[in-house]
Amino acid sequence: MADAALSLDPGLVQRFVEIVGDRHALRAAEDIAPYLAEPRGLWHGHSPLVLRPGSVEEVSRIMGLATETRTPVVPQGGNTGLVGAQVPDEGGGQVVLSLSRLNRIREIDLLSNTVTVEAGVILQTLQEAAANADRLFPLSLAAQGSCQIGGNLSSNAGGTNVLAYGNARDLCLGVEVVLPTGEVFDDLRKLKKDNTGYDLKNLFIGAEGTLGIITAAVLKLFPKPKGREVAFVGLPSAEAALSLFGLASDRAGGALTAFELIGRRPYDYTLLHAAGAVRPLTSDWNWYVLMEISSGRSAEDARGLIEDILGAALEAELAGDAVIAASLGQAEALWNFREVLPEAQKAEGASIKHDISVPIASIPTFIEEADAAVELVSPGARPVCFGHMGDGNLHYNISRPADGDDAAFLAQYRIVNDAVHKVVRGLHGSISAEHGIGQLKRDELIATAPPVAIDLMRRVKAAFDPAGIMNPGKVI
Amino acid sequence: MADAALSLDPGLVQRFVEIVGDRHALRAAEDIAPYLAEPRGLWHGHSPLVLRPGSVEEVSRIMGLATETRTPVVPQGGNTGLVGAQVPDEGGGQVVLSLSRLNRIREIDLLSNTVTVEAGVILQTLQEAAANADRLFPLSLAAQGSCQIGGNLSSNAGGTNVLAYGNARDLCLGVEVVLPTGEVFDDLRKLKKDNTGYDLKNLFIGAEGTLGIITAAVLKLFPKPKGREVAFVGLPSAEAALSLFGLASDRAGGALTAFELIGRRPYDYTLLHAAGAVRPLTSDWNWYVLMEISSGRSAEDARGLIEDILGAALEAELAGDAVIAASLGQAEALWNFREVLPEAQKAEGASIKHDISVPIASIPTFIEEADAAVELVSPGARPVCFGHMGDGNLHYNISRPADGDDAAFLAQYRIVNDAVHKVVRGLHGSISAEHGIGQLKRDELIATAPPVAIDLMRRVKAAFDPAGIMNPGKVI
Repeated sequence: MADAALSLDPGLVQRFVEIVGDRHALRAAEDIAPYLAEPRGLWHGHSPLVLRPGSVEEVSRIMGLATETRTPVVPQGGNTGLVGAQVPDEGGGQVVLSLSRLNRIREIDLLSNTVTVEAGVILQTLQEAAANADRLFPLSLAAQGSCQIGGNLSSNAGGTNVLAYGNARDLCLGVEVVLPTGEVFDDLRKLKKDNTGYDLKNLFIGAEGTLGIITAAVLKLFPKPKGREVAFVGLPSAEAALSLFGLASDRAGGALTAFELIGRRPYDYTLLHAAGAVRPLTSDWNWYVLMEISSGRSAEDARGLIEDILGAALEAELAGDAVIAASLGQAEALWNFREVLPEAQKAEGASIKHDISVPIASIPTFIEEADAAVELVSPGARPVCFGHMGDGNLHYNISRPADGDDAAFLAQYRIVNDAVHKVVRGLHGSISAEHGIGQLKRDELIATAPPVAIDLMRRVKAAFDPAGIMNPGKVI
Repeated sequence: MADAALSLDPGLVQRFVEIVGDRHALRAAEDIAPYLAEPRGLWHGHSPLVLRPGSVEEVSRIMGLATETRTPVVPQGGNTGLVGAQVPDEGGGQVVLSLSRLNRIREIDLLSNTVTVEAGVILQTLQEAAANADRLFPLSLAAQGSCQIGGNLSSNAGGTNVLAYGNARDLCLGVEVVLPTGEVFDDLRKLKKDNTGYDLKNLFIGAEGTLGIITAAVLKLFPKPKGREVAFVGLPSAEAALSLFGLASDRAGGALTAFELIGRRPYDYTLLHAAGAVRPLTSDWNWYVLMEISSGRSAEDARGLIEDILGAALEAELAGDAVIAASLGQAEALWNFREVLPEAQKAEGASIKHDISVPIASIPTFIEEADAAVELVSPGARPVCFGHMGDGNLHYNISRPADGDDAAFLAQYRIVNDAVHKVVRGLHGSISAEHGIGQLKRDELIATAPPVAIDLMRRVKAAFDPAGIMNPGKVI
């Protein structure tokens, strides 16, 4: 750390400190440490300085000074990202800018169904504020207790509610962004329709802080569903799950709010390793689906819909068995079963992860081809497949062979990734459906995306951040 | 025309002609004429050459030659745009590139619910192809019989179905774009989730052909509604219409597929001037709403929903009177009443038009303030207000005073625009909700948008079209 600290001039550090005040400029190693490592421990960066500005104006002044002095800045929200976008590099010359103190909900507009919120607001806090106003803010994901809205937008977060409500991008009507120069781009609009020039908003969303810093946003709110039903279904095949999805979409339309696919392995591992996990179905199946129906009309309506769908699915032998949660507690237990899958998989040893999407119709083909491709490059490795099937998005994570060695298996990370991603590309899919690019997939993106796309992205980056100080080394 | 033709070197013209073949390179004044004027006659450009390429490869070669020779190119679809984006300038040195011959529907994927379509496909042709495949393509607007999908995307078209299904941007999953250099950016994906780098797709959508030429797109399809009901409602005030919208949204959610506001003047003018228009309600009201409910479940379900909403609205005295169409024919007659409003207004003399949006909650305030602002700058002028209230989007068109003079009134175009747009800006609205910027609003956009936004748009333009040959003089 001593060496790293030297890479920022003490006089410059002092100028940054003066902008936010001594209390909010972290310089001691033990204070800075939590901002340098991310949850999975894949990246560990260095930095002599973490700034915690308390206003948009302070963010603006920080970036103005950064531009003047060509100091690289790494914006950080709740530090829950999975691709290393929020972690500084190891050089020790990058300043971390934490948005945590910009945590005000500026306005809830019940008539326009919008909320104006600062970047540092924790997702769960926003969900609760919406609920208290008798509204739903639908974005929902595993890290919601600590991730922040600014990070959700910068990574275009997905999660379990995308099927009916869209991802972070779809939920955002307007943004406020501090540009690398310190200028503030105020586009905090509540409009559903606005065709006045280029769509700048969507450039900043999903840019992982490489084009500017999102400091606030206008987000959509929705009516709270009046009825919600959760079912757990056992199915003979992934093809049957695809047919069930078609049937459920057709009957429920926008009321189908979740359709999560779970393979037999993650199901079994959860029963084996997750403390307190309750077996959802008495019989065993090759595939399972967690399905949720939310009705804007009534509890009875939701119940009627889900019974109707499951009845038709059982009759058509798409579903082999099914259970509908009989209480709120049971519904939560079923969702909990879905949410602990990644944790339960850990007990089976090292794993190689993927966050892919393909056209929904290609899901069964993807599973078949990817399983074969993995077996070829890593015999005995165990594909653990689950994810947001309704969005075409699977977390296809490979556990090492049952009797294998963690380190030897992880040495194959790149080979296994390449094999799976080759199948993805063959099906015109995406190698990062919802987690983003960050540091993790930057080289692969550049190597495998069409050169025209990479060239256009580089032109955007150069146009918005000509000095290259905005989260350098990420995305592109 | 002779002078104009001289501004392109004959040898260069010949090189362009050779790319598409003699038949598809229009050079005679009478062949070119339909491409130079737009429907309302506000702009009339000059050009010595209209190219009608028959493949993406030909579009690519045209742009390659245009870049080599710095020849400006104006892409054109169905030539129905309302802001002059598709019309060349008067200099005679711009080549018009018509996408009409790129008119194949490449694929309909019923499992993924997508259609891959070329830019020159006419909107209504696509609607019909979707219907024949038992699907809905929801984009719907007055010009649908002649406008083309490429133009719809390039202008991010709106229309009457945005409320439930979104605008053209929301309906698009992937694009194929020929860049100014002739390179092809192939991003024809069917994915709901894809976080691999910057969102380039949304830059091209709504850019009015100033960044590249959209040659094909992947669009979303939806299940055909199983029941549809249309009602016409009379209301005492715009505030009552806002409350009715809240009530209908709450009860119907995504099944509320249209909520169109109609003022008393356009209602009366339609009864006066539109041949065959049938009076929807026996009593007269200050405001009217055309409301549509589409059910994915059944005809009975749609009927039950709309009766439930209207019953509650009448009881709460939000609605004064209401009629539900009793047949498909009656439903079409009510929709027709809405669609002929702009035409009926013409009989009342010259009008000054606006295509604005504000947060939905601000609609009544907008109407009150805009009426007052117009009366101040143009006493006796008659605001004719109607539009897509559910999207916050009104076509607020001012007819000249009843006993006024057309030319004298139109001389006030700018003054009246300024007065109305000042109210829009005060309510954080948009001066172009769905028609775009083109030539019509370019100067005003540049003069009134935040300088930071204009600067960012100029950087995007320079990054994508450094030679400035891509539809110059439009948007920015």
